[in-house]
Amino acid sequence: MEKLFVIKVGGNVIDNKDALDEFLQAFVSVNEKKILIHGGGKIATSIGDRLGIDSKYINGRRITDEATLDLVTMVYGGLVNKNIVAALQAKGVNAIGFTGADGNILRGVKRPVKEIDYGFAGDIEETGVATDLLKQLLESGLAPVFAPLVHNGEGQMLNTNADTIASTLAVAMSAYYEVRLIYCFEKKGILGNVEDENSVVKNLDKKLYQEMLDSRKLFEGILPKIENAFKAIDAGVKEVLIGDAKDLVNNAGKNHFGTLISN
Amino acid sequence: MEKLFVIKVGGNVIDNKDALDEFLQAFVSVNEKKILIHGGGKIATSIGDRLGIDSKYINGRRITDEATLDLVTMVYGGLVNKNIVAALQAKGVNAIGFTGADGNILRGVKRPVKEIDYGFAGDIEETGVATDLLKQLLESGLAPVFAPLVHNGEGQMLNTNADTIASTLAVAMSAYYEVRLIYCFEKKGILGNVEDENSVVKNLDKKLYQEMLDSRKLFEGILPKIENAFKAIDAGVKEVLIGDAKDLVNNAGKNHFGTLISN
Repeated sequence: MEKLFVIKVGGNVIDNKDALDEFLQAFVSVNEKKILIHGGGKIATSIGDRLGIDSKYINGRRITDEATLDLVTMVYGGLVNKNIVAALQAKGVNAIGFTGADGNILRGVKRPVKEIDYGFAGDIEETGVATDLLKQLLESGLAPVFAPLVHNGEGQMLNTNADTIASTLAVAMSAYYEVRLIYCFEKKGILGNVEDENSVVKNLDKKLYQEMLDSRKLFEGILPKIENAFKAIDAGVKEVLIGDAKDLVNNAGKNHFGTLISN
Repeated sequence: MEKLFVIKVGGNVIDNKDALDEFLQAFVSVNEKKILIHGGGKIATSIGDRLGIDSKYINGRRITDEATLDLVTMVYGGLVNKNIVAALQAKGVNAIGFTGADGNILRGVKRPVKEIDYGFAGDIEETGVATDLLKQLLESGLAPVFAPLVHNGEGQMLNTNADTIASTLAVAMSAYYEVRLIYCFEKKGILGNVEDENSVVKNLDKKLYQEMLDSRKLFEGILPKIENAFKAIDAGVKEVLIGDAKDLVNNAGKNHFGTLISN
């Protein structure tokens, strides 16, 4: 099977003009078929402040009321997405911007209200990926760029976690490609020893992960990311790479950057 | 050749929730292949006011400074475009949103500064339409929905007139389809007598136009629209229809609404 890179870049890179440009340059250098998913960043909060829209959070998750939904649809789906697409076009990548509504490419449902009402937050339907359209675009040489928004098929846009969009797309496209799911973050990779920045674990499988869990040297905050990585792999993704956005350029072959998680 | 409808709807419809819904319902009922181009509307001005961004106009044209460009990229490319796409999806049309940057589908150049500096306003390049991609999407059953923004291929988004985008797309796609270019506006059509709302001219060709010019019964403000229509027809478009957005549903065969302009 042909390779496909599904790459998620977070808000911390989006917010920094130089870091974003460096990342996009690295994205250009990826020769495989590729999909980019971008987070939102603080720009929505700063524009929201100027519009008098309060950012509300419960347990670290943004509550999306109607005004906030309009805000993120504007900022993530418009400003951030189009500026990334235009920048990639200038660098020779035929990027095409998407929210889930475009081409019905990613459907979700409004998160059910239990203890907390998250408002217009979307949970993606696993069967909600228009894989045929995505494949057609990739085969035509296009690089889809996703904003973290889906729709429910009934006219409602929904604010959605970019990590989840990335893993859902990666799993769905595993039917057609050998998928490498890449999460760009602020460290060089997963540290074998949380007190040593140079202790990046180059390759991680379930056996080693269990050993590391037992020796309690992993940073606790990274555990959900690793669990999600193994979940994606169990669902068909070939491998998950976690590392620094600007190292993305050194992705070729065995000489990969960051931590490569596989079965 | 197969038919293609290229339909432009203006800001006055976009600004009115009921009028927009009525128009979209009519758009759904068009059975031919179709492309929608939407204007901006006053929502950018009202959000701009809240953000402290002044709307500057010279001779009725918006001056697009950097803050205004960010504003229209957010509002037209994000909020307006995505809400239209999601609404069409809910009505069963497989809509897909575009700015000119997406898939490099529409390139322009920054308007040269002569007496007036229009800022980040784009003049479309006639050869700047990615007709292959557009054709591929139409053949796949998708309905492209354009926000009035293009890019210059060097990373710069540009604010662009929606009427011009519509006529440029219509002319470019005439190589593959029998194109009807439709301008939705606030009258039933072109009035033979400006003082009589019921004097809609059903069919207009160059000969009749010359006669009407000679008898001076046309509303002066409509003359540029008619001149542009004939220009599009001379460049390959089969016919141009001008009429009320909500009448769009009655488009079938000879029993068309509004004023049909042809050679």
